[in-house]
Amino acid sequence: MKAKVHVTLKNGVLDPQGKAIQHALGSLGYEGVNDVRQGKFIELDLAETDPAKAKAAVEAMCKQLLANTVIENYSIEIIA
Amino acid sequence: MKAKVHVTLKNGVLDPQGKAIQHALGSLGYEGVNDVRQGKFIELDLAETDPAKAKAAVEAMCKQLLANTVIENYSIEIIA
Repeated sequence: MKAKVHVTLKNGVLDPQGKAIQHALGSLGYEGVNDVRQGKFIELDLAETDPAKAKAAVEAMCKQLLANTVIENYSIEIIA
Repeated sequence: MKAKVHVTLKNGVLDPQGKAIQHALGSLGYEGVNDVRQGKFIELDLAETDPAKAKAAVEAMCKQLLANTVIENYSIEIIA
């Protein structure tokens, strides 16, 4: 069973990495880029076969390790 | 118009960051994590209103800046 996790900065949290990308795109001549936000994308391959249990396990992993819930949101997608 | 870009390492390319996460999850007592791969997730807010043109622009950005196409794949999703 696979899980896809997106970890993104919460709204209002400064994203210097995104700003750097936006600036670099501007320097390369790409116009009309209003905003860039960069997050993390984590793919997990789990031995668990029950989708509900897998989601609960990944949720615990996000809270404990994968995301800093003070400044980051996470979303989990379980794929059979 | 918004674009979501996923940049992931190609299969066969070593992912030390993913391995570090896998190892850390093991240390925290999460069992049955067979593999972890970490990629990047980039959200772009574009002034462009035509989906086809937006996709073409983001494709060019990926090739030139966002992804290293020697070792990384990218996928683009355009959201109205």
